[in-house]
Amino acid sequence: MIAAPSPRVVETIETMARAARRASRQIVRSSAQQRRAALQAMADAIDEHAADILVANALDLSAADEHGVTGVMRNRLELDRAGIEKLAAAVREIADQPDPLGRIEDEHVRPNGLRVGRMRIPLGVIAMIYESRPNVTSDAAALCVKAGNAIILRGGSEAIHSNRAIAEALRAGLETTALPVDAVQLVSTADRAAIDVLLEQEDSIDLVIPRGGEGLIRAVTAKSRIPVLQHYKGVCHVFVDETALLERAVEIVHNAKVHRPGVCNALETLLVHGSAAPRVLPSIAARLSDAGVELRGCPETVALLPSLPVAPATEADWHAEYLDLILAIRIVPDLEAALDHIATYGSSHTEAIVTEDAGQAEAFVAAVQSSTVLVNASTRFADGGELGLGAEIGISTSKLHAFGPMGANELTTRKFVVFGEGQIR
Amino acid sequence: MIAAPSPRVVETIETMARAARRASRQIVRSSAQQRRAALQAMADAIDEHAADILVANALDLSAADEHGVTGVMRNRLELDRAGIEKLAAAVREIADQPDPLGRIEDEHVRPNGLRVGRMRIPLGVIAMIYESRPNVTSDAAALCVKAGNAIILRGGSEAIHSNRAIAEALRAGLETTALPVDAVQLVSTADRAAIDVLLEQEDSIDLVIPRGGEGLIRAVTAKSRIPVLQHYKGVCHVFVDETALLERAVEIVHNAKVHRPGVCNALETLLVHGSAAPRVLPSIAARLSDAGVELRGCPETVALLPSLPVAPATEADWHAEYLDLILAIRIVPDLEAALDHIATYGSSHTEAIVTEDAGQAEAFVAAVQSSTVLVNASTRFADGGELGLGAEIGISTSKLHAFGPMGANELTTRKFVVFGEGQIR
Repeated sequence: MIAAPSPRVVETIETMARAARRASRQIVRSSAQQRRAALQAMADAIDEHAADILVANALDLSAADEHGVTGVMRNRLELDRAGIEKLAAAVREIADQPDPLGRIEDEHVRPNGLRVGRMRIPLGVIAMIYESRPNVTSDAAALCVKAGNAIILRGGSEAIHSNRAIAEALRAGLETTALPVDAVQLVSTADRAAIDVLLEQEDSIDLVIPRGGEGLIRAVTAKSRIPVLQHYKGVCHVFVDETALLERAVEIVHNAKVHRPGVCNALETLLVHGSAAPRVLPSIAARLSDAGVELRGCPETVALLPSLPVAPATEADWHAEYLDLILAIRIVPDLEAALDHIATYGSSHTEAIVTEDAGQAEAFVAAVQSSTVLVNASTRFADGGELGLGAEIGISTSKLHAFGPMGANELTTRKFVVFGEGQIR
Repeated sequence: MIAAPSPRVVETIETMARAARRASRQIVRSSAQQRRAALQAMADAIDEHAADILVANALDLSAADEHGVTGVMRNRLELDRAGIEKLAAAVREIADQPDPLGRIEDEHVRPNGLRVGRMRIPLGVIAMIYESRPNVTSDAAALCVKAGNAIILRGGSEAIHSNRAIAEALRAGLETTALPVDAVQLVSTADRAAIDVLLEQEDSIDLVIPRGGEGLIRAVTAKSRIPVLQHYKGVCHVFVDETALLERAVEIVHNAKVHRPGVCNALETLLVHGSAAPRVLPSIAARLSDAGVELRGCPETVALLPSLPVAPATEADWHAEYLDLILAIRIVPDLEAALDHIATYGSSHTEAIVTEDAGQAEAFVAAVQSSTVLVNASTRFADGGELGLGAEIGISTSKLHAFGPMGANELTTRKFVVFGEGQIR
């Protein structure tokens, strides 16, 4: 249970939310050139504040050490000079992307002469609630401002000093531009009740994006009165079809599992067409085993790979997002069975088929209702940068508004614009 | 307070939600031709069940009479032969619209040779919670099926017999087609706890669309764990600019206010440029007054119209959605002041400018962040049919996913589809 928020926290958050709404109304009227200049100023300010950010990061790291945080969790927190340069470089890259706003799409003329189109506009105010990685602070702020939005950032307490220092740099950069400083605000209290208050500001905030563990996302979704774009887990599948080329299947499966096992687009369950299994599975499994991957298979898989250590897979393995060097393997009789497995156990994140049969590829692409569906390519391409969005603020697994990797364009909406000459009904 | 749902209600709703999910997985794989045939069968079945629907409607009407329901509320409930023919005609019209699914958009080739595009797919399962008008039952079902979704309908208790009869007809129509009958289901219990249970089925339902009074929409939004597309009130504005043509301004304002004052795209507050007011306001106001519109004006308006009965407007009038023959009028010094007024008091629904100055029109269109922005046309055009969507399932005033009138296309999402030749990262 979290205690009721103090009046001071309520006032702080409400004031921030109102300031964000005011700022969003100003940014809406800025030009593409002004937003670009603002992002460049934000990037410059990150460079200029590098020393402050390093000092702040050291405070977070020593707190992590005190709490016995090690390994990946500590690595995620750590920033060095090169890391700070990367933050600035990412902001500059976003600055140089095409501007998403103002375009009129789907324009047409109605029988009564009304010219109707849909114009891209910002969403307004976005609240981002996230854990660890301080780079989210600058990435998310840059993407939101690029798309003409104001942002309220609420990072995890483990990175609070780093996040504060980065946000101060971003705001210092904005000071020198035509855009309002309150386009970027950070909730700097570690009080968790601040999140509850934030999620009640439906009049001032248009969208909440939680990014972090499933617990965080479920809690935010349950409490929020504001629309939430979720990013739940990725239980990603590769289906190796009857006609798959051997080498291609081996390389794609290896890359999808081993390249970066801790991320959401990593392969978790391999499905193999029964007719292909004797031909392809031994090579695939040997390659994975050599790379240190623990294999858990259905009975047919175990039988097919007598010389490899394959544990029997249980029902829990089909549901598992290991985020580790573990792979579940199932031999299925045909494409339909693969599709059934994905519909039953998948998380609508990312699935791939390896096949030389165009009809099978088409059937797979049509039937799989996941946010990214690939043919003859690694699941690791389910990423905003790799798919051409420039940068991503997250990967939505809910179908509303945006499904899959989200870039600046996904932080906009469309209004109808109608040009008439006095038409009435 | 609503009592906790009974185990029977929980089981009924959970069973329906699971059946809807299963049905949605089947529809996803149907062809455009199959969906079109299914809609035609649904329309035919409405005609065939006309007698049953009339009997059911009579039950609702006699209950309404017992409860002393009269006027607009009773009219909304009532169906006659012609009304039932209209239900079927609307379904046929939706059947004949272009199919929204399967198109690949934004296709391009990445530097590594991956061909990336975005394919339109259904949202999945939609729950529609609505009040009165039984026509929503068939309209919403048809739009959802058109876009490849399954729908769970929950109408108001005042129309429960009519809704049941219409839903039975739709399902009888589906029986004869390749689509699953459970693509259309109606919650037939009047127990309000059923709504609470429905809003908890986030694993089986992808979107909730409430349509009705603000109380219903706020309650659904507060409780739902599923994304909700709201349709809040329409406090719509017309701004008559300095250069507005007199006759055009008079006709647009009259139409926007008087044509159908009880709907959400009706004009509620008229803003007039100070330099134009002496020239245009007397004629506008006289025309409205003749039509029986009660006028409430700012002090300048009152002073300018000595011969008309204009009550002094209060702060509450600027916020009001009258849905009646009442109009608030404010004279503003310039476009900026009009924009400020709209940003402060508007509901992001629909606003129009009447002007002969292209620069002012452009500035208005760029600055106003409402779902429909019109130049020299009546606010009454903020309607799915009028804007070319064919039919509408509602008008979203939240910016997420869809903003403004929503047709079949707005009941879809997009997945990334990626075609490779063995690419790995």
